Amino acid sequence: MQAAIDEARKGLDEGGIPIGSVLVHEGKVIGRGHNRRVQSGSAILHGEMDALENAGRQPAKVYAQSTLYTTLSPCAMCSGAILLYGIKRVIVGENQTFLGEEALLASRGVTLQVQHNQACISMMKDFIAARPDLWNEDIGR
Amino acid sequence: MQAAIDEARKGLDEGGIPIGSVLVHEGKVIGRGHNRRVQSGSAILHGEMDALENAGRQPAKVYAQSTLYTTLSPCAMCSGAILLYGIKRVIVGENQTFLGEEALLASRGVTLQVQHNQACISMMKDFIAARPDLWNEDIGR
Repeated sequence: MQAAIDEARKGLDEGGIPIGSVLVHEGKVIGRGHNRRVQSGSAILHGEMDALENAGRQPAKVYAQSTLYTTLSPCAMCSGAILLYGIKRVIVGENQTFLGEEALLASRGVTLQVQHNQACISMMKDFIAARPDLWNEDIGR
Repeated sequence: MQAAIDEARKGLDEGGIPIGSVLVHEGKVIGRGHNRRVQSGSAILHGEMDALENAGRQPAKVYAQSTLYTTLSPCAMCSGAILLYGIKRVIVGENQTFLGEEALLASRGVTLQVQHNQACISMMKDFIAARPDLWNEDIGR
């Protein structure tokens, strides 16, 4: 999770939305990323999507054996990507500032573990208070 | 739908997976795209995602008033993006070669219209027969 938090902080330093993610396979980070809405003008590069993209094209069995760490509860798009690739385990930094599609993921057999991580909560609370407009845009509101 | 089919054919000509999509707002195409797994080595640029990315950052009300045309039934990732952005209407070229998350979308209030378009069906049938490995990779199998 620390690597995902580091990614989120990198995003914040770049003037972006502080959400980070890493994809871990057999104990090794194979993809890391952070939200790039501001930095790349992207509508699809949430933290989880950026980590998946940076992991590159992987065979199905790699995804099936991987764990996705993300600082924030995954939204519908990122949850859909998790389902598409059959990622079976997702570690969530926090789901207090935003609750994504955890119920859908669980109903499809994905194991979720929510850490209620204080560093993740503070980072998002401060960001949402400072930039509610940008945050709402990021979650389609 | 013809614009989405044109995108799919462009992808095929580039050596890629022939799935195309356009996002239409108030009768105007505001984003068009096609699958870029091969062309960009991308794990996330399905046709629908590419169209959303090329539409750029849009306010929520634009998505809510838009229709997404896609040559193929949207997978979990693309369906998740549709839900995230609150796109209420999706026109699907065909769902015979692949059935995506249409039931989930419908259960969340998205209106779907499946055209059973022969051009879309033939294009995917030929592609899947020619490159089953690449196709399976694209849908996480």
